Amino acid sequence: MRLVTVGSVAFDAIETPFGKTDKIVGGAGTFITLSASFFVSSQGIISVVGDDFPLDVLGNMNSRGIDTSGIQIKEGEKTFFWSGKYHNDMNSRDTVITELNVLEHFDPVVPDVFSNADYLMLGNLSPTVQRQVIERMDKRPKIVAMDTMNFWMDIARNDLFQTISMVDVLIINDEEARQLSNEYSLMKASKIIRSMGPKTLIIKKGEHGALLFRGNQVFFSPALPLEEVFDPTGAGDTFAGGFMGYLAATDDISFENMKRAIVAGSALASFSVEKFGTSRLMEITKSDIEMRMQQLVSLSNFEMNQSV
Amino acid sequence: MRLVTVGSVAFDAIETPFGKTDKIVGGAGTFITLSASFFVSSQGIISVVGDDFPLDVLGNMNSRGIDTSGIQIKEGEKTFFWSGKYHNDMNSRDTVITELNVLEHFDPVVPDVFSNADYLMLGNLSPTVQRQVIERMDKRPKIVAMDTMNFWMDIARNDLFQTISMVDVLIINDEEARQLSNEYSLMKASKIIRSMGPKTLIIKKGEHGALLFRGNQVFFSPALPLEEVFDPTGAGDTFAGGFMGYLAATDDISFENMKRAIVAGSALASFSVEKFGTSRLMEITKSDIEMRMQQLVSLSNFEMNQSV
Repeated sequence: MRLVTVGSVAFDAIETPFGKTDKIVGGAGTFITLSASFFVSSQGIISVVGDDFPLDVLGNMNSRGIDTSGIQIKEGEKTFFWSGKYHNDMNSRDTVITELNVLEHFDPVVPDVFSNADYLMLGNLSPTVQRQVIERMDKRPKIVAMDTMNFWMDIARNDLFQTISMVDVLIINDEEARQLSNEYSLMKASKIIRSMGPKTLIIKKGEHGALLFRGNQVFFSPALPLEEVFDPTGAGDTFAGGFMGYLAATDDISFENMKRAIVAGSALASFSVEKFGTSRLMEITKSDIEMRMQQLVSLSNFEMNQSV
Repeated sequence: MRLVTVGSVAFDAIETPFGKTDKIVGGAGTFITLSASFFVSSQGIISVVGDDFPLDVLGNMNSRGIDTSGIQIKEGEKTFFWSGKYHNDMNSRDTVITELNVLEHFDPVVPDVFSNADYLMLGNLSPTVQRQVIERMDKRPKIVAMDTMNFWMDIARNDLFQTISMVDVLIINDEEARQLSNEYSLMKASKIIRSMGPKTLIIKKGEHGALLFRGNQVFFSPALPLEEVFDPTGAGDTFAGGFMGYLAATDDISFENMKRAIVAGSALASFSVEKFGTSRLMEITKSDIEMRMQQLVSLSNFEMNQSV
């Protein structure tokens, strides 16, 4: 199996200026694998849900080549639930409810068929669980990528530093990069964070695009300018899933190919925000994604062919 | 004369988290023409100063090919003075003092040698003064570009709309675009604003780069990620000056060339913020600028040469 992801499979209830949902299916693991499925035909997910989780969702994942044998279903327990409300500018949100439920004592199990994966994506979870998954693989994957959030910086700093030191690619947003490094300048922050372990750092800036740092190289991919952002939930995970799916499918970890992988992630994220939850990702096809990748090419490419 | 600019020549006093200045030379017209001087060897500036303004500054402009015969020197009056203080994140600032002085009754005079210019840049000033300069040219320039700010939207909306309807290129920041259009989405705002007259719109997003809109085409140039932003004063004017200087020097108003002009503007703005006021722009050479333009190429260009 080329790509394995550990991440939450959850219920979300979302309110935005455009409307609100009841409990819908969400979670980092859901968005990451769904997004990656446009590039890799076979991948695995490690997660945990309660017996309240609809089995047809897992069936839909299977039909997209996502092996769900790494999702534990806990009898008599409830699935992780998050509820949030976005402010008018869609750039900030309040968490209304967080019910950890099955995630509270999540002990990740790595099925045998997953344990030789070359690409491992650690979705945002406790850094201890993330580390356990690395340790429970049969071999060290070629690329381990990791997402995290401010919450873990506040309550589990040492565990977080330990896990960060074990990964190749850290994918976080600008606010998180600033908090993790204690440095406002993202250029300075990128050096401090890469001195913690990850050779490659991706800083997501939401509607302002994403930066990729490795060695002395920097690449920037804009976000596609959209008429309307309907629901940003899961956009970061969709981006990470597109990035890792593209890398795993091409099996090329050069800087040049990571640029393309980031553009793939940006294209997928641009769809994700157009409807609530995963619904837009469920509709689109590979050629829709290729069209958006081409739009990103014409948005940012130019030629310096004149000397003045 | 290829390029003419109308804009303030002023004194600024600036405080940032890194330090503060006494009165130093600033003003939109100063930054714009200084920036453009790296591309055009001969240009004109229309402005007004008091008799307190140091003549050696005008001499320095002349030595850079900037014809200052359009700068009126008002005996017994004082030069425009602005004082501002930046907040810790450098993205917002408070105006401490604004003394209009000579700008209050500025009646722009267009010298004969200026009046056939093909490129006219209207720096941020009252929309009435901006309109007068267009009307006082002998012929309609090939490109009239215009900057403005929220202030004029608040107190001179009708005059502003009239001037905007007369220009080819409007160059404003994201906040101003939102206020002018009453629309948060920049994609939607860009359509509304272009329906007011300008065929081309540039939305500056500070450290987040700049968007160029014309017809159905969109281009995005990132800002160069910098270790430190020392003083953002004049960055937007430096950007506009680089853009117009590049356009005027190449005399090519195709969309492809406007992309390069925006990259030129971004490169110049990245220098401007590295020291107080115009001091960094005074030090750099053409080859410094070319190097930064190349950095912007490698920052944003990539090839989609793999099908996955």
